[in-house]
Amino acid sequence: MAPAPGSPAVDAPAALAGLRGIVLLQGLPDEGLAEVAQACRFRLYRARQTVIARADVDRDCYLVITGKLRVVALSPGGREVSFRDAAAGEAIGEMAALDGRPRCATVIALQDSLLARLSPEALTDLLRRHWPICERMLRHLAGAARGLTERVYELSTLNVQQRLCAELLRLGLAADAASPDRVVLSPAPSHSELAARISSYREQVTRELAELARLGIVSRDDRQLVIVDLNRLAEQVEAVRAA
Amino acid sequence: MAPAPGSPAVDAPAALAGLRGIVLLQGLPDEGLAEVAQACRFRLYRARQTVIARADVDRDCYLVITGKLRVVALSPGGREVSFRDAAAGEAIGEMAALDGRPRCATVIALQDSLLARLSPEALTDLLRRHWPICERMLRHLAGAARGLTERVYELSTLNVQQRLCAELLRLGLAADAASPDRVVLSPAPSHSELAARISSYREQVTRELAELARLGIVSRDDRQLVIVDLNRLAEQVEAVRAA
Repeated sequence: MAPAPGSPAVDAPAALAGLRGIVLLQGLPDEGLAEVAQACRFRLYRARQTVIARADVDRDCYLVITGKLRVVALSPGGREVSFRDAAAGEAIGEMAALDGRPRCATVIALQDSLLARLSPEALTDLLRRHWPICERMLRHLAGAARGLTERVYELSTLNVQQRLCAELLRLGLAADAASPDRVVLSPAPSHSELAARISSYREQVTRELAELARLGIVSRDDRQLVIVDLNRLAEQVEAVRAA
Repeated sequence: MAPAPGSPAVDAPAALAGLRGIVLLQGLPDEGLAEVAQACRFRLYRARQTVIARADVDRDCYLVITGKLRVVALSPGGREVSFRDAAAGEAIGEMAALDGRPRCATVIALQDSLLARLSPEALTDLLRRHWPICERMLRHLAGAARGLTERVYELSTLNVQQRLCAELLRLGLAADAASPDRVVLSPAPSHSELAARISSYREQVTRELAELARLGIVSRDDRQLVIVDLNRLAEQVEAVRAA
């Protein structure tokens, strides 16, 4: 019988192999992983499909086996506030799974994505029984709260150019380049994406990027955005914070 | 011998009694509580004293036995971004204790406050050994990330009057009044405090409160701020979100 649409046939070895790539589950012995696999429902989401909708009351946690998703909130006026992207190996929807309240953001698949869906009870059981996984979740949540605290601070105290510099610095550091003298962001985030990350408008980001290019901090070609001097960008961001 | 300044003599029964009021520790049996008391250092902070400074690398978690504190970030220009107030029974500094990174906010005592200071190792040990406490911490962190997500969304999509209404609604719901027809916030938050909570300026808050009073949504007298009709305020906030 053909599998139901969206519910691919994932056999036990494939499920185990998929879950082995999930950061949260690192170090879990095979029998534990097999139990998680048993508790999961696997589902394939198409690019642009909505996985979680803000304000919904479902509470499952999703493990990203393959693909990429974006966590956003859309304003009634159509403005997109972007929170984070989740790649293969990451988890999404963990907040509602843990505190039982309605979804505070929407999650949209950026690419076709295979997700393993875990009930809040199964997640709680996993955390209760395996301390290393629980500790990783505690750190992840603390890190999420820390990143959001920083973002509130930036939104409250920095102008658009300063926020753009801070965001480019984060992207540059995350790119983990061999040398700080030429950090390539490829594919370059679009101006709309940057705007959604720093709560600005596309036109404003375009203007500010042109200014940063004029100052020799970034250069742009084709599909790449190059941070010409990451240390100088870091100094600039630091100077604003200490000003 | 007189106790060192700031380090009050807290005998074992007083320590136990103090820790019994900490929400995070609820349900911990007496012997567990005694172990926590042993691991804590008690210290009295005076009103206006800084307990934690943003960017510092110390990692202790503090349990608020008595008093009240405010979690803020101060911009170089002197602007205060207020994150939350922590009253007796709450914990502060848990993020750095869990993820080991520098402090992302400053904590200032609003009143004389007796705090129990717990090392990150002692906190971790407590969470590892007592699942109900760990589950409470997971929920607390998820809730913190949720509240900050909401704040980023509001800062990105709402104007000052809309943010003020959303904040007044939160304060009104937290006041847990008998009737929604007259919710008294007493003592009223100052206009500066409200501004620090919604990332605005005092003058702007004063202006917007006057407008809300004119619309019959709030009324002010002396040291009180009264939400005249909480349901109407909720409808107003809801209408903006669905507009």
